[in-house]
Amino acid sequence: MKILIVLAHPEPKSMNGALFTTAIETLQAAGHEVKTSNLYAMRFNPVSDSSNFTRLQNATFFKQQLEEMHATETGSFAYDVDQEQEKVEWCDLMIWQFPLWWFSVPGILKGWVDRVFAMGRFYGAGKYYEQGIFSGKKALLSLTTGGEEGAYLKDGFNGDIINMLKPIHRGIFGFTGWSVLHPHIVYGPARLSPEAREAELNKWKKRLLQAVDEQPIEVGTY
Amino acid sequence: MKILIVLAHPEPKSMNGALFTTAIETLQAAGHEVKTSNLYAMRFNPVSDSSNFTRLQNATFFKQQLEEMHATETGSFAYDVDQEQEKVEWCDLMIWQFPLWWFSVPGILKGWVDRVFAMGRFYGAGKYYEQGIFSGKKALLSLTTGGEEGAYLKDGFNGDIINMLKPIHRGIFGFTGWSVLHPHIVYGPARLSPEAREAELNKWKKRLLQAVDEQPIEVGTY
Repeated sequence: MKILIVLAHPEPKSMNGALFTTAIETLQAAGHEVKTSNLYAMRFNPVSDSSNFTRLQNATFFKQQLEEMHATETGSFAYDVDQEQEKVEWCDLMIWQFPLWWFSVPGILKGWVDRVFAMGRFYGAGKYYEQGIFSGKKALLSLTTGGEEGAYLKDGFNGDIINMLKPIHRGIFGFTGWSVLHPHIVYGPARLSPEAREAELNKWKKRLLQAVDEQPIEVGTY
Repeated sequence: MKILIVLAHPEPKSMNGALFTTAIETLQAAGHEVKTSNLYAMRFNPVSDSSNFTRLQNATFFKQQLEEMHATETGSFAYDVDQEQEKVEWCDLMIWQFPLWWFSVPGILKGWVDRVFAMGRFYGAGKYYEQGIFSGKKALLSLTTGGEEGAYLKDGFNGDIINMLKPIHRGIFGFTGWSVLHPHIVYGPARLSPEAREAELNKWKKRLLQAVDEQPIEVGTY
C-alpha cells in the first residue's frame, strides 16, 4: 500500500516525533511504500495567498478558488504546493500525526490544507463528499492530547474528542471523499513513564499493521 | 468600549476586507476605542515553535506549554507574540473577521491562536472555562462562506454552521473564559450584486452597534 504520513510538531524528540518515526519504520518493514511531509522540518509555508501559484488569472483582485481552478487547468500551482498535492494524490492511506492544539490541528497543518486542498484539483464540479475525488482512499488521524483520557469523554472536562474532530473528519476528509479510520489517540504523553511511553509506541505499531485493512467509521453530519 | 478586530484574509478588496474596514469606521464613529490585527498585512508568522520566546527554559527539548509558563513568569515572549497578547488583554470585545476555510479559520489565524493564547498567561492553574482569565469579555466571529445559507443549515449540503464553529466557540473562547456572541455570517459574498453587497455592509454596521450591548449565546459542550 502507498502511505503518506504528515507530521506537524516542532520537536523531533516529542511523542509525536516518536510516533512518526515508528510509523515510517513499521510500515516500511511490512513492505509498504511510505512518503512523508514533515511540515516543521520542511519549513512548510502555511499562509495561503497568491504565493500558492506561479501565475495569476487576476493579479489585481485575488480570489483564491478562481485561481485554484485556473491553476488546475494550466498547471500553475507553486512548486511547494504541487509537490504536496502529488503526494496526497499518490497515496492510498494518509496519516496525520499531530498534537491536538485548541481542539484542532496546529496552524501549520491547517495552512497545509488551505494551500494544498485546492478547488478544481481536489474538489468541485460535483465532486464532493461521497462523490469526492479521494473516494476509496483512507485517512487516519494520529494525535496526542495535553490532558488525560477522561477529559475527552462526553461530559468530561473538555468533552467528546470524536465530536471535536468532526470538522476534520467530515469537513476535510469527508468533503473530499476519503474514508475515515478511527483516530489513534495518545492521551497526555508528557506525563507518561518511559515504560508507558514504550507501551504506547508498541500499541501504535500493532494498530498500524491493522489499519491498512480496517473498515472506516461513520463520521456523520453536523 | 475597547475593541480588538483580527482580520485573516489575503485580499484587501475582498468582502472580508470591506467588513473589517466597515467595523473600524463604524465603531470609532460610535466613540469606541479600536485596535486591529490585520494578520496578512502584518505578515504575522503563524508557525508556533521556539520563536515564540526570547529565551528558552530547555533549549534541547522544546515543550511548548512549559516554555509558555516560563515565559509568563519571566516576561520572555517574543515581541510579535507579546504585542498580540497585550491587545487581547486590553480589549473588552474581540471580533475575528475571516473567510470559513475548511469549516474553520484560515491557518494564519489558527497559528495566531497557537502562539498567542499561551498557558500561564491566558489559561492554567484552575483558570479554564467559566473561571477563565477572560471572563466578562465578549468574543464575536464575523465570517463569510463560499456557499449559500441553505448549505449551512442542519441537514443542508454541509450541515449546521453553528455546530461547525463549536471548536472555536467552546474550545478557544469558552476554554479561556470569553462570553460568545452570536456569529455574524455573510453567505456567498462572491455571488452578491453590488447592491446586495452594500446591503450586507449596512446590516453589519447595525449589528456592530448592537453587539456591544448584546447578551451572549449558550455554546454548549461537545
